[in-house]
Amino acid sequence: MMKFVVRSSRNGVRSGVITELPGRPDVTIETPMCMVYSRTGSVPHLTPDVASKIDGTPLITHIPINSLIGHLSAVKQCKKGIRDFAVLGDTLLYGSLQDPAEPVFPGKNDKHSVAVWSKGGRISVNPEMYVEVQEAFKFDWFAALSDGDTDKQTSRKRVRKSVDRTLQWLDESIEKLQKSDVQSSERLFGVLEGGFEIDQRVHSAKETALRPVAGFCIEGFNTAGPETEKVDFTEIKSILHETLTHLPSEKPRIMHQVWPPHLVLEALEAGIDIFDSSFPYIVTERNAALIFDFKYNGTRSQVIKPNGGSDSESATRVGYEIDLKDKRFESDFSGLLAGCSCYTCRNFTRSYICHLVNTRELLASVLLMIHNVHHYFEFFRHIRLSIQEDKFLELLKLINSQRNVPEKT
Amino acid sequence: MMKFVVRSSRNGVRSGVITELPGRPDVTIETPMCMVYSRTGSVPHLTPDVASKIDGTPLITHIPINSLIGHLSAVKQCKKGIRDFAVLGDTLLYGSLQDPAEPVFPGKNDKHSVAVWSKGGRISVNPEMYVEVQEAFKFDWFAALSDGDTDKQTSRKRVRKSVDRTLQWLDESIEKLQKSDVQSSERLFGVLEGGFEIDQRVHSAKETALRPVAGFCIEGFNTAGPETEKVDFTEIKSILHETLTHLPSEKPRIMHQVWPPHLVLEALEAGIDIFDSSFPYIVTERNAALIFDFKYNGTRSQVIKPNGGSDSESATRVGYEIDLKDKRFESDFSGLLAGCSCYTCRNFTRSYICHLVNTRELLASVLLMIHNVHHYFEFFRHIRLSIQEDKFLELLKLINSQRNVPEKT
Repeated sequence: MMKFVVRSSRNGVRSGVITELPGRPDVTIETPMCMVYSRTGSVPHLTPDVASKIDGTPLITHIPINSLIGHLSAVKQCKKGIRDFAVLGDTLLYGSLQDPAEPVFPGKNDKHSVAVWSKGGRISVNPEMYVEVQEAFKFDWFAALSDGDTDKQTSRKRVRKSVDRTLQWLDESIEKLQKSDVQSSERLFGVLEGGFEIDQRVHSAKETALRPVAGFCIEGFNTAGPETEKVDFTEIKSILHETLTHLPSEKPRIMHQVWPPHLVLEALEAGIDIFDSSFPYIVTERNAALIFDFKYNGTRSQVIKPNGGSDSESATRVGYEIDLKDKRFESDFSGLLAGCSCYTCRNFTRSYICHLVNTRELLASVLLMIHNVHHYFEFFRHIRLSIQEDKFLELLKLINSQRNVPEKT
Repeated sequence: MMKFVVRSSRNGVRSGVITELPGRPDVTIETPMCMVYSRTGSVPHLTPDVASKIDGTPLITHIPINSLIGHLSAVKQCKKGIRDFAVLGDTLLYGSLQDPAEPVFPGKNDKHSVAVWSKGGRISVNPEMYVEVQEAFKFDWFAALSDGDTDKQTSRKRVRKSVDRTLQWLDESIEKLQKSDVQSSERLFGVLEGGFEIDQRVHSAKETALRPVAGFCIEGFNTAGPETEKVDFTEIKSILHETLTHLPSEKPRIMHQVWPPHLVLEALEAGIDIFDSSFPYIVTERNAALIFDFKYNGTRSQVIKPNGGSDSESATRVGYEIDLKDKRFESDFSGLLAGCSCYTCRNFTRSYICHLVNTRELLASVLLMIHNVHHYFEFFRHIRLSIQEDKFLELLKLINSQRNVPEKT
């Protein structure tokens, strides 16, 4: 039986450890943690061989099924599950319905099913089909079928529907799964809904907590997609604070969205344990490289400047990332980030990557993805370290100092 | 001083060996050979790490400069040449003006310069600038500046201009290079022009052969681009036969175009020694995988069928490639090509690659590129083997049996 122990909880920030995973007694997972984000069953742009060599790659991969569900019959025929179908190696697999990096078109769910967008178009997933997916895909963990199509503007009535459907589907799924060979209580994550209605949130949390689930997934604050990196988290945070107290502490909590560094820290303070790496993917898609500093103990004397390698531009701006389309990197022969040990930084210059970006060669995406994912996993390693060393507030301060500083020119 | 020895020449097909390359006494290159095709200084889609692990990767990389010349000032500042700028490792580098996989817009050259298309637009390259490029890029070999803007339709007058300009620029370049530190006689390949005018071809060959060049590059039959894979080679072949007799045999001959298997063999019969791997790149760009058979000694009992792994479809068609967009591969759990030892075939199924292609994930291009390039290099290895074993005609027959066979449905 999977075990999650919260080792410490300070300022709301939980630090825990997951052990005794079904079929994987060898694995220990420390939280807070970041799952590997994947789409179409792979880390975007990277072969498994390249992806597996990135330092600090976590032991769980997040597989949003929208890009794979169109292949359900092929995965079924393959018989060995999505792991074999997509050559996923020995990472643990967490399946969810929607891709956090892709917007969901609103208004398409009904009382029987959830709309999921595959490249072939919309697919309506009902509890029966979802159980079929679980049987075929053979995930280690998966989020329950849920109606997360709510945001700040959604009516109370629609929010209530979302909560009720999601609970009803959860019960139906558990019933069906108990008849299958999928051990639902070890694998199924109940999904909390309730939009911005606090009473609905509490109702959803309390009811879900009564079911035999392995953990919780919190959604319904916004439809997914790259825009979630810009959300104002203030209200969400206070709702989370109030809601999560109704959950047992010994079950892990996942939240899906695109997570820039400051939002990760806000969500941690609200009690979330598990994230994914869709943020570095989104950064890669805009041809940018992550350069934010997370070394809270001051081994770097100052916030990293985007042109660390070149004195003449050393004070131009701060921020999380640099844009490699920018012509100013054409003659910058430093690596993406001074001190970074990733494959890209050990071998390539900003100048060459700028050139690849501007000639639209897709190797640019490959190299940026390697760096960005590596940097983000390192960020999570430093989060865990900061909790151990009781320096979380230093890290928080450092990250916030790099937000929204206007560009001096 | 670079040495090229023709070891055998049978039915026009030359087999040779290149040694004593300037600065690289360690390298021996056997011909016929296929240079690694690159664009923007990299094997398309692949990190150097991944590319270098492909079996049989040749020791020379072809660098068309069009996608890099816009970065001339950055490469100059870098001071260590294109090898360092683009992390090209220890492969030998052959620079040329135009990309064989990209069409050249006609009518833009004049008597002073050649038009080259970079992503930033048209750049006019004159002999002075071209020498600057050579000094900055530091190629091991490079094709001379040439006016190759001729094809079957070009007037005699225009063809004559092309030959005269190219010879004049060659003389100007040699003069300038002799004043620089680039050893032109070891590195510079004279370019033969003359369109489809046999007297101009002979004139171009004889005159170029008088200059101190390291080898020859033959162009001017068509403007470059993917379309060259479809050319009717009959007339070109007879012109090559007549022209190349005027060249000294102990210098290697390169020809740039997109080379499907049968055209490689035709060009070999006409006396060409060196090709490049732009064909597998073009095949990758159309989401296809090379599956043609080159095992002329009959270790495969028959022409490879696109669905080798699935009996029900085993006789549907023959051809050089299969189209991974095709829905019939959705449930095909065999590798791209039975018996292939490349990374892609060792790990991935047609089903999963079909899925990646149809969800437009660029890992599809990465995986297809690995397989296609590997397969093409293996083809060249078998060409050399067939010459050694005096089985070239068997190989020719096998390749021709796979051309244009109408699809049985």
